[in-house]
Amino acid sequence: MEQLLQTPSLHGDNIEQKRAEIKAYFNQSWTLYESLFEVIKADASYYLKAEPLRHPLVFYFGHTATFFINKLKLAKLIEHRINPKFESMFAVGVDEMSWDDLDEKNYDWPQISEVRDYRDRVSVLVNRFIDTMELSLPITPDSPAWLILMGIEHERIHLETSSVIIRQLPLDDVQPHSNWSACEKSSSAPRNALVDIEGGNLILGRPQHSDGYGWDNEYGNLPLTLADFKASQFLVSNQEFLEFVTAGGYQQSQYWDEEGKHWLSFQNRNHPRFWVKHGENWLQRNLTEEIPLPLNWPVEVNQLEAAAFCRWKSDTSQEDVRLPTEAEWQLLRQQVPENNPQWQSFPGNIHLAQYASSTPVDANPQGALYDIVGNVWQWTQSTIDGFNGFEVHPLYDDFSTPTFDGKHNLMKGGSWISTGNESLPYSRYAFRRHFFQHCGFRYVSSEQAPTLVENNVYETDTMVSQYLEFHYGDRYFNVDNFCESAVNVIVPHLSGRARALDIGCSVGRSSIELARHFAHVDGIDFSARFIQQGWDLINHGHKRYTIATEGELVDYKSVSLEALNAQDLVDNIHFSQGDACNLKPQFTQYDLVLASNLLDRLANPTQFLNQIGERLTSDGVLVLLSPYTWLEEFTPKEQWLGAKKIDGETLSSFEAINELLCQEYQLLHRQDLPFVIRETRRKFQHSVSELTIWKKL
Amino acid sequence: MEQLLQTPSLHGDNIEQKRAEIKAYFNQSWTLYESLFEVIKADASYYLKAEPLRHPLVFYFGHTATFFINKLKLAKLIEHRINPKFESMFAVGVDEMSWDDLDEKNYDWPQISEVRDYRDRVSVLVNRFIDTMELSLPITPDSPAWLILMGIEHERIHLETSSVIIRQLPLDDVQPHSNWSACEKSSSAPRNALVDIEGGNLILGRPQHSDGYGWDNEYGNLPLTLADFKASQFLVSNQEFLEFVTAGGYQQSQYWDEEGKHWLSFQNRNHPRFWVKHGENWLQRNLTEEIPLPLNWPVEVNQLEAAAFCRWKSDTSQEDVRLPTEAEWQLLRQQVPENNPQWQSFPGNIHLAQYASSTPVDANPQGALYDIVGNVWQWTQSTIDGFNGFEVHPLYDDFSTPTFDGKHNLMKGGSWISTGNESLPYSRYAFRRHFFQHCGFRYVSSEQAPTLVENNVYETDTMVSQYLEFHYGDRYFNVDNFCESAVNVIVPHLSGRARALDIGCSVGRSSIELARHFAHVDGIDFSARFIQQGWDLINHGHKRYTIATEGELVDYKSVSLEALNAQDLVDNIHFSQGDACNLKPQFTQYDLVLASNLLDRLANPTQFLNQIGERLTSDGVLVLLSPYTWLEEFTPKEQWLGAKKIDGETLSSFEAINELLCQEYQLLHRQDLPFVIRETRRKFQHSVSELTIWKKL
Repeated sequence: MEQLLQTPSLHGDNIEQKRAEIKAYFNQSWTLYESLFEVIKADASYYLKAEPLRHPLVFYFGHTATFFINKLKLAKLIEHRINPKFESMFAVGVDEMSWDDLDEKNYDWPQISEVRDYRDRVSVLVNRFIDTMELSLPITPDSPAWLILMGIEHERIHLETSSVIIRQLPLDDVQPHSNWSACEKSSSAPRNALVDIEGGNLILGRPQHSDGYGWDNEYGNLPLTLADFKASQFLVSNQEFLEFVTAGGYQQSQYWDEEGKHWLSFQNRNHPRFWVKHGENWLQRNLTEEIPLPLNWPVEVNQLEAAAFCRWKSDTSQEDVRLPTEAEWQLLRQQVPENNPQWQSFPGNIHLAQYASSTPVDANPQGALYDIVGNVWQWTQSTIDGFNGFEVHPLYDDFSTPTFDGKHNLMKGGSWISTGNESLPYSRYAFRRHFFQHCGFRYVSSEQAPTLVENNVYETDTMVSQYLEFHYGDRYFNVDNFCESAVNVIVPHLSGRARALDIGCSVGRSSIELARHFAHVDGIDFSARFIQQGWDLINHGHKRYTIATEGELVDYKSVSLEALNAQDLVDNIHFSQGDACNLKPQFTQYDLVLASNLLDRLANPTQFLNQIGERLTSDGVLVLLSPYTWLEEFTPKEQWLGAKKIDGETLSSFEAINELLCQEYQLLHRQDLPFVIRETRRKFQHSVSELTIWKKL
Repeated sequence: MEQLLQTPSLHGDNIEQKRAEIKAYFNQSWTLYESLFEVIKADASYYLKAEPLRHPLVFYFGHTATFFINKLKLAKLIEHRINPKFESMFAVGVDEMSWDDLDEKNYDWPQISEVRDYRDRVSVLVNRFIDTMELSLPITPDSPAWLILMGIEHERIHLETSSVIIRQLPLDDVQPHSNWSACEKSSSAPRNALVDIEGGNLILGRPQHSDGYGWDNEYGNLPLTLADFKASQFLVSNQEFLEFVTAGGYQQSQYWDEEGKHWLSFQNRNHPRFWVKHGENWLQRNLTEEIPLPLNWPVEVNQLEAAAFCRWKSDTSQEDVRLPTEAEWQLLRQQVPENNPQWQSFPGNIHLAQYASSTPVDANPQGALYDIVGNVWQWTQSTIDGFNGFEVHPLYDDFSTPTFDGKHNLMKGGSWISTGNESLPYSRYAFRRHFFQHCGFRYVSSEQAPTLVENNVYETDTMVSQYLEFHYGDRYFNVDNFCESAVNVIVPHLSGRARALDIGCSVGRSSIELARHFAHVDGIDFSARFIQQGWDLINHGHKRYTIATEGELVDYKSVSLEALNAQDLVDNIHFSQGDACNLKPQFTQYDLVLASNLLDRLANPTQFLNQIGERLTSDGVLVLLSPYTWLEEFTPKEQWLGAKKIDGETLSSFEAINELLCQEYQLLHRQDLPFVIRETRRKFQHSVSELTIWKKL
């Protein structure tokens, strides 16, 4: 096979040369992908469902081509589709997403020749597009060229995942191919050992202006400190894993977590997916052949099997081992020369530089270890999540975000078929823990608890997200942030500034603003799911949520303490769940009680107003904000504060509150304060609260 | 009794003299009212429930005093109440309103001496208030003095209604009183006859700057033309009514309408309320005595009895008679000298100028008739409604509006005890048709169908009212009227201007705006209750509705064709109920189809967009406005236009619409247009529709 091009630099000073470079990279990817499919013996084999969780290979043959058209169309860079039917049929079905439709009855797959013709037409279109697209350097995420690189890198991912599916086709359906030759060396495995690794500080995440195409999940940063630890010198070999299989590891539930046990009971497995038992002998299935189990090649398992092995190993060797974290792998990675974005020479069995298969675990030394990159991917125990500063790429908003669900674990290091972006140290691919890839593992031992990235799922509860956007999001209709404005109005009227209570704090913004002025702020809300948001924000430093744009379409939003300039306030803020009308005794001695948009959500606001004074210091201040939106759903009509005829005469809510408070408080200030709650991009609740400030007499 | 003062002029050039005049008017009313209660023999009689639909008299004794305090408090003209308990207990319970609580178990009435003491304290307060209130001339509805006049005129109404209740106390509970002496003349009645009355133009309603205190329902105008008609010379006498009773009129259901039959079956009556059968003889109960039925006095009946009599009379006399309308009475009233606001001399048995009872029907000639004013009130067949330009007085917003319900009929002319405003020609009092007052009737005969004021009930359905305010009401957040703005944007893009279709027209404003440019506008909506609003507006010229302010408090709003400058457009507009996706064949050949905020409320918007082109002329224009607020409640998700991922890619609603329309239409224009729907004074839906203009190719 010709030497494969690497992912292009985004920089340069010659536009036409860059155009040629991109074009070459596209065409080589395209040809390489089609070449992989040549190992499939007959057209009929394209329609077999080799992997029940995936579409048949005909889908993948079309998919990488339609991706270009669909993205160019989405970006309004082309006007017409080539084949609307194909561009729908081949569009989705890659992961077990809710919107994937894997029921084959719903598909009437076309002939392979039709797909091939279609691919040819797409290739012509993309070549013409590259020739004529607007291009300036450097290429940035909003360049048309970025979209072409996205399509190429997307195809390279599928080069890998399609090879995994082909590996699951019956042997009779595949054939050897000169481009796709396996390694032929194998013997017994070297004895694995733990090697000392020096800890240190590192920053995960890719700098925004680093060179080369990157997927959205790579950017941002996460600083970490790792203690010294030990890592296995080699990837776990078939031989090492065979001990676990022979010891009955698949049958002993103590080595499996709940998810692993569930998977085992569902799949009834007792050995790795690519092993084949032939009489008394173990074979291994490679891309196009079965060979006697190569004992010194890395084992390929899913994450659940890898984790079970580690538990068994810890149990039987008195050395506590586990899967590495993303950070631990990233520290190991420092032992391999940089490649940003181009390798000078390939350090191992990666980028198709050596074989179309694994190779012995001791064939590619890298620093003190072997196979830090290449050969097979290595499972981590880190679930994937965006780094600080993560932003969705608008033209592929579901590449990463659906995987930030705690169910997708990162693999690192790349395999023999990992090319382009896949081979970069920044690359971050994550799969469900029960999925198979060309993926094995190494184990580590550390006295430090694994530094796992806190999983930061997008909050999608409509009500909660609306309030997150209300408290932390954009301004709409030029209305200033409500919580910030309210606190600014309040502050000049304060006497003491020791303790504040934000009662009905919702998702917490007022508490954070108050913490700029008070040493101690209690934020209390009746709703645990609301309190959770503020708690997450001050404990994790950031919070993500989606907001509706149109129908089921969403925008991805996030807020961080950093953006709020509130990193130093965390210790001042205490969120807890509680009932405004039945507060625990410790919530007292406040210089300020703020009840923002609370009154008209209470069942008994009179009781609240009658009791809350006890919680104030002698010259404390009570601040009420309310749009007086009384609803029987929250407050029985007889408990409304005014907002009805009393003895035949109109009594406003303000008048009713004044009647309740005027004996014990002095009214210091009264004004309107507007706020906006976004429901969709085009629909908002626009309300005006009345803000009143009452000083205790 | 001393000569009674009449309602003061609002004008003058001497402030202190006016103060003295108001004070005298107050004190005379106050004393007169207390004097009436002196006919009650013992305190215990105050607690009898003489009229089951009314509170006992103790309530009325306190009520007129608390009214002053409650209104002064509401207007923030006094700071402290005198007796909060009394001011609640004596506040409401006058009509059968939903908020009236007539269950005596809920009342713990005080001693009469306590009420008398309370009245004394109120009198002192009001006298002091009049002495010190801000006063400038002329007095206007926002003057403090207006509120005092309101209190006095309110007491004068209750002087009358309390006398009606006292008339229902057992005879043993009342005593004669020198101030309250009945007429002693009676004999047989003169034969009644119909007198020719010349028709003509007249304008009902009181000019805004006319002199004297007026209730809100008196102001405004309603021009009318009356044909010549005949009116009975005399009020119907006891003798004339006795013929009906003797003829079994109460037992013959053909003389009673449904409401009358229902009342009869409930009350089981067979003669007028103030008649008493004593063996074979008829007596009449007056204020403090029973006397042999005075045959030549006017009969006193409720409106249902009066109407039944007219049917019987028509049936038996071959002359078609009926109750007069408000307008017919008002034309008769021109035969009596003016009294605006002061009579020079009283033309009849009114203003307590003659007796504390009725007097013979032939005692007071006025022009060609007798008793056009005075003696007893006269029922009309007109239900009360506000005139054009009606505005609620903010400090007594439930004086009139609850009676605009089609269930309250006007009485005209006043009775012997009608004083102050009650005696003016403008005064408009209305009672439920089954209520008793000192009220009888005269009949009329006319070839003209009765010119009844169309009943114009306040629309209180929350959703409908919100849309009326959205289409016809105020601007909020400086957002221009949506319908008006949309039409302004559309007009420059039109080719033909013959026919327009406003599909999903809601309460009709866009149809009205389109009618300024099109000879024929069809406004169609699926909701009959929405269509009703536009229909009412163009057919009656005005529409009233209430909008929520806070909780159950409302503001009273109205819109008129006049205010819209749209009187001349009525013939161009055709409202009808219909289904946007299944229009009748005649709705076609439009130069413009406007679908404003419709798409996301349709079950199948694609079908609508595919079919609507057939309704357009060859170069017709289709205009869509939508905030794309897709909800499964209206549109199944699979029918949403975009607003979801299609084949994994974001498809906006605009893009989906464009795909549907781009073959058959040219997109001429696209912009955002905001709108605001008020929910309460402090809560709004603030949305932004996208407006797109498509010209048929």
